Amino acid sequence: MRENRLRKIWQEGGTAVNGWLHVPSSFSAEVMAHSGWDSLTIDMQHGPVDYGSLVPMLQAISTTDTVPVVRVPWNDPGLIMRVLDAGCYAVICPMINTREEAEAFVGACCYPPEGYRSYGPYRASLYGGRDYTDHANETVVTMAMIETHEALENLEQILAVPGLDAIFVGPSDLGQSLGHGPGMDRDEPAVVEAIEVVLAAAREHGLAAGIFTGSPEYASRMAGKGFQFVTISSDARLMASAAASAISTFESE
Amino acid sequence: MRENRLRKIWQEGGTAVNGWLHVPSSFSAEVMAHSGWDSLTIDMQHGPVDYGSLVPMLQAISTTDTVPVVRVPWNDPGLIMRVLDAGCYAVICPMINTREEAEAFVGACCYPPEGYRSYGPYRASLYGGRDYTDHANETVVTMAMIETHEALENLEQILAVPGLDAIFVGPSDLGQSLGHGPGMDRDEPAVVEAIEVVLAAAREHGLAAGIFTGSPEYASRMAGKGFQFVTISSDARLMASAAASAISTFESE
Amino acid sequence: MRENRLRKIWQEGGTAVNGWLHVPSSFSAEVMAHSGWDSLTIDMQHGPVDYGSLVPMLQAISTTDTVPVVRVPWNDPGLIMRVLDAGCYAVICPMINTREEAEAFVGACCYPPEGYRSYGPYRASLYGGRDYTDHANETVVTMAMIETHEALENLEQILAVPGLDAIFVGPSDLGQSLGHGPGMDRDEPAVVEAIEVVLAAAREHGLAAGIFTGSPEYASRMAGKGFQFVTISSDARLMASAAASAISTFESE
Amino acid sequence: MRENRLRKIWQEGGTAVNGWLHVPSSFSAEVMAHSGWDSLTIDMQHGPVDYGSLVPMLQAISTTDTVPVVRVPWNDPGLIMRVLDAGCYAVICPMINTREEAEAFVGACCYPPEGYRSYGPYRASLYGGRDYTDHANETVVTMAMIETHEALENLEQILAVPGLDAIFVGPSDLGQSLGHGPGMDRDEPAVVEAIEVVLAAAREHGLAAGIFTGSPEYASRMAGKGFQFVTISSDARLMASAAASAISTFESE
Amino acid sequence: MRENRLRKIWQEGGTAVNGWLHVPSSFSAEVMAHSGWDSLTIDMQHGPVDYGSLVPMLQAISTTDTVPVVRVPWNDPGLIMRVLDAGCYAVICPMINTREEAEAFVGACCYPPEGYRSYGPYRASLYGGRDYTDHANETVVTMAMIETHEALENLEQILAVPGLDAIFVGPSDLGQSLGHGPGMDRDEPAVVEAIEVVLAAAREHGLAAGIFTGSPEYASRMAGKGFQFVTISSDARLMASAAASAISTFESE
Amino acid sequence: MRENRLRKIWQEGGTAVNGWLHVPSSFSAEVMAHSGWDSLTIDMQHGPVDYGSLVPMLQAISTTDTVPVVRVPWNDPGLIMRVLDAGCYAVICPMINTREEAEAFVGACCYPPEGYRSYGPYRASLYGGRDYTDHANETVVTMAMIETHEALENLEQILAVPGLDAIFVGPSDLGQSLGHGPGMDRDEPAVVEAIEVVLAAAREHGLAAGIFTGSPEYASRMAGKGFQFVTISSDARLMASAAASAISTFESE
Repeated sequence: MRENRLRKIWQEGGTAVNGWLHVPSSFSAEVMAHSGWDSLTIDMQHGPVDYGSLVPMLQAISTTDTVPVVRVPWNDPGLIMRVLDAGCYAVICPMINTREEAEAFVGACCYPPEGYRSYGPYRASLYGGRDYTDHANETVVTMAMIETHEALENLEQILAVPGLDAIFVGPSDLGQSLGHGPGMDRDEPAVVEAIEVVLAAAREHGLAAGIFTGSPEYASRMAGKGFQFVTISSDARLMASAAASAISTFESE
Repeated sequence: MRENRLRKIWQEGGTAVNGWLHVPSSFSAEVMAHSGWDSLTIDMQHGPVDYGSLVPMLQAISTTDTVPVVRVPWNDPGLIMRVLDAGCYAVICPMINTREEAEAFVGACCYPPEGYRSYGPYRASLYGGRDYTDHANETVVTMAMIETHEALENLEQILAVPGLDAIFVGPSDLGQSLGHGPGMDRDEPAVVEAIEVVLAAAREHGLAAGIFTGSPEYASRMAGKGFQFVTISSDARLMASAAASAISTFESE
Repeated sequence: MRENRLRKIWQEGGTAVNGWLHVPSSFSAEVMAHSGWDSLTIDMQHGPVDYGSLVPMLQAISTTDTVPVVRVPWNDPGLIMRVLDAGCYAVICPMINTREEAEAFVGACCYPPEGYRSYGPYRASLYGGRDYTDHANETVVTMAMIETHEALENLEQILAVPGLDAIFVGPSDLGQSLGHGPGMDRDEPAVVEAIEVVLAAAREHGLAAGIFTGSPEYASRMAGKGFQFVTISSDARLMASAAASAISTFESE
Repeated sequence: MRENRLRKIWQEGGTAVNGWLHVPSSFSAEVMAHSGWDSLTIDMQHGPVDYGSLVPMLQAISTTDTVPVVRVPWNDPGLIMRVLDAGCYAVICPMINTREEAEAFVGACCYPPEGYRSYGPYRASLYGGRDYTDHANETVVTMAMIETHEALENLEQILAVPGLDAIFVGPSDLGQSLGHGPGMDRDEPAVVEAIEVVLAAAREHGLAAGIFTGSPEYASRMAGKGFQFVTISSDARLMASAAASAISTFESE
Repeated sequence: MRENRLRKIWQEGGTAVNGWLHVPSSFSAEVMAHSGWDSLTIDMQHGPVDYGSLVPMLQAISTTDTVPVVRVPWNDPGLIMRVLDAGCYAVICPMINTREEAEAFVGACCYPPEGYRSYGPYRASLYGGRDYTDHANETVVTMAMIETHEALENLEQILAVPGLDAIFVGPSDLGQSLGHGPGMDRDEPAVVEAIEVVLAAAREHGLAAGIFTGSPEYASRMAGKGFQFVTISSDARLMASAAASAISTFESE
Repeated sequence: MRENRLRKIWQEGGTAVNGWLHVPSSFSAEVMAHSGWDSLTIDMQHGPVDYGSLVPMLQAISTTDTVPVVRVPWNDPGLIMRVLDAGCYAVICPMINTREEAEAFVGACCYPPEGYRSYGPYRASLYGGRDYTDHANETVVTMAMIETHEALENLEQILAVPGLDAIFVGPSDLGQSLGHGPGMDRDEPAVVEAIEVVLAAAREHGLAAGIFTGSPEYASRMAGKGFQFVTISSDARLMASAAASAISTFESE
């Protein structure tokens, strides 16, 4: 089975630089896949990507060795299994607030006896190889989003769920849950502290920690702290910023 | 009928800053439409946009006052009429090399007696207004691409075609045709001279001149020379550059 | 943030005339958006619209000031959040039968602390404005469908849920649940009485009441009774009726 | 091979009532196919239908015995052959102004030796039957649009082209070409006279005559005059009119 | 209402030969519908079909008298109702492990009072007929997948749920759940025995039994044992096998 | 630039086994790309593939080292350039009957000075590499279909066009043009002789010869005769045959 480079990067102590895809187009996905990201996450939660556009986007990413990741919109076993069948190598699940939710999420990602994933890797076996089923459970990465006050309270129990590989911090939701509003690169002490608590606990449990950031500078600081999966901005935001910057430069010349 | 802001900008002696769309997605089109461009050109020639994706992209642009422009893949009257029916306010036609080609292009854009456009503005009248038909001929902008040696030779005849509103320089094709290879922001004397010849001739005939550029700095220089329609990069290139730059910044921190 | 005209109409004591979209096409959505409706509801429950077609339809509606509404297929928080992120200004949720269901629905529509909506208004902030997040909770309208015997029994508890803005009567399901079969413009005393009970209770709780109707005449009667949101027929039914009528007229001439 | 009911209706001296499809949706096409039209024309010229949406629309029509017709955007042999391969039973070609254009059009619709249609009826043989190729030339209907002053001048030569089955009058383009502007149900004497000339000439040559109308009343008058193929309005127009009428009725009650 | 031929085949003691669709294309669906299957199941669980592609595929199947079946990805009432509204005549639900799950599934398929299906058969009434609602509950077939150890333990309770019409054995998931790994045409005694237990129990309760197979030979054996619904391979597997076989034959000649 | 394996196979004296794609799905394209074909041709002439589905199909093929080929529907320079920009490595053009047509075709495939292809390899440079433009003219393969009586008469002139790399025999159209009807694996002496004349002439001019066949056996015979590019059946035909065969085997057991 094709190796999951995320696991390799993490085992070597490195940090994966992850791009984020909101534009539901296999062409822009392929452009991003040629831009140097270690992995690309297709966001089905807060972007216009649905299952119909997901599959061509995964195919586009598969023309390179960028690792394909999907964020599902919700902890829904049917959809989690479908994105895995489509050939993604990591699943990010939002709003994991309790041990039970973490168990349900991880179980949906694993074939029996470790979980209850249903069999039918229609594209995953094209991408991963004919022996996909034999190695899927230990190859696919499961990432639970820690982004609420409730999750912080249940952090130890969530991190202890067998088969959970990583956590992913959502700074906007976490900030809102803590009463500080949305936003990316946080510096409010309470939010920063919460992020550090999550990071420390994840590392203690041997899990990789990931975080969404709005800039390479902040991402670099997070990597320095020990985050091993840093997302920088998104396709649409990068494009919009670059467009605004180009127009502004034009006008100021 | 809704005004064509391109004409207004030109009448006031200004330069329209034009964005370029290759990604066949109405979402990325809407993001670009909120980024400050005066107009956005959907490129059906060298991008993956087909007619099925064109219409939602035009609708997305129509949620703002950005002027919708389409570059057609070829001087094909059937398709030219279709993109006009879909509600674009300017058409860029590639490879106009002779007076006859220019006449065929302009004729396809105009209702009789000025041209031979067929009647059926199914979406154009939603966008432009119920009186679309009465004013379409003088509102819609026709732009002929001047991008070959042959076009340079026939320049005067092309520019003299009644109803032609503007020309648009394609630096890559022009450079190739002149034996200097493709590329955006040209500085080879022969290519620069050709560009200036086209600009001067266009202005003499009272036509607006446009050009494709790869950077706001070059675009600004071109505006300074008298170009009134400058395209800067494209959605996909802006995104790819911004992505590469973010990764590079991350890695160098 | 862009105003929600539904709220304004209701505050002024008026009745919003709502169109209903089943055809999964941004073109027909735009045609309907130019036809004079105060709001248009895209029906993801009983029509062929999926998330992939929803976004272009919302964009098409956004070219006008018609208020975009979505009926979700089920009380599914992941999807409810996604349709809000896509920029709709009201959500209709079917089959709200208990207080718990109403709370789950409303919570999915509101950011903390009022609810548990996750942050990521990727298109909503394009449509609503950059300050979308600040005002979304009090701008977006939540409408719970009251359409079963169980919901009638729990009516008071449902209506008392904080953050619920309106109810919407589904006459077919309500009729079936009460043993009278499906159908639009009901005149069975038991069904009529149930509808009036719902209306009265809603008004008592300060909620707007909506209803699906099959004709402008019945809609007008309902508005007269106090309904402030009346849906008349649907795009597909209007088209089919008009087609049948045209053919019939042709044949009888 | 499945019979072409258009031919049967014409042979019996009847008039086919034809619906017109602009909405690029197989669902609305199926709704229209159940509404009683003898045939349905998918308009690729002045509507947002492209080849990707054409095939599902033809399939939707094929669930009924409504005859599938396609209007191509231009006299383009590649596309004409493709819409035939997709299984339509009649092709309407716009802007046939000369004998040569009529010959090119008819030739693209017929297999050798009658024409130069290329072989590959990938869906036509599913719809028409395994013996499609044997009978296609005499089953498929070719309709040339007569809609310009030039076509009127060349009328006899056009009508004499072997294999041409019918003509179709486009009142808007014809009116514009004659200097009277666009519009459906014409009553300007010059336009009416031109229409009658076309009708008389078509009948003399044994060809069926068709016309686009805006109302069943006008269609009925045209049928009375001898037109055997009358189009009434379109899906989008029927829907928009019915919507406006419903809103108006609601407001006036 | 249009008859459900699956019920007829079963009442006559026959076995329905079912094809399986993974390719999200209405064209390949129509090709398969002309290939001789009694029914075709569109697989939304382990294939790339989403709701947007489902509707045109159902329309394509509806051009023939092949019975349209859908396997939903999960026991999700909102989606189950939507596939029924789209006009399928049987629903296969995966992973039915308890009586409660079976009841929820069957309830979602039936209108009150038998179930809680919401009313709105937008396409089902085009396909089934105007009296669809009157007969839907007894026409539509509900098939529960028995594919886990837990389901075997609760078999009697599941089979006793009123309104459940059939069961469907998933050999891969069942094999995995029993510790024998995935695979189609099982011969491990423990798996074979489990399959036979399910078959016998289903027949005893008067339910039809179905099974997924990888070859016509195995399917034939299963039919011989009493299975009345046998799936043979899938569109994608049949194509891939035939391709590999053609290449192999070419190379060996 | 990525090598064109077709050229390599031909230079080594081998025969490329080519698969044929009619199903407009990137999933089935990827399945075929994993089935062992040397190249896969996406057929835009006699299949339902349009430009919108072409790009994802090319991406799917690009996940493997199968060579991507496109048959365009007609000798249309705009579309030919677009399929090249999308990243195909060979173009098959139907109905090349004269030297002028061959020159127009080849010119559209080559950048100046060899041809008049416009610059903008938006995806071709992702697939082929950043130096795509430098080597495209000698890497991309041009194949002209010889399939009419007229082409046979002009054979020498067609084959002499500089830059033409290969010819492709269409047996159905050739058979029809010669008065023998359509069909794949021809044995009528006149058709066989014509095919051999084309083969011999192509080899004499140093061009590769290709042919469409209906079976691996016939393909093998053609390879034995000297054809270096043999197409065997198509995705849809392979699937339909395998389905019919499975059902037949089931029924006969």
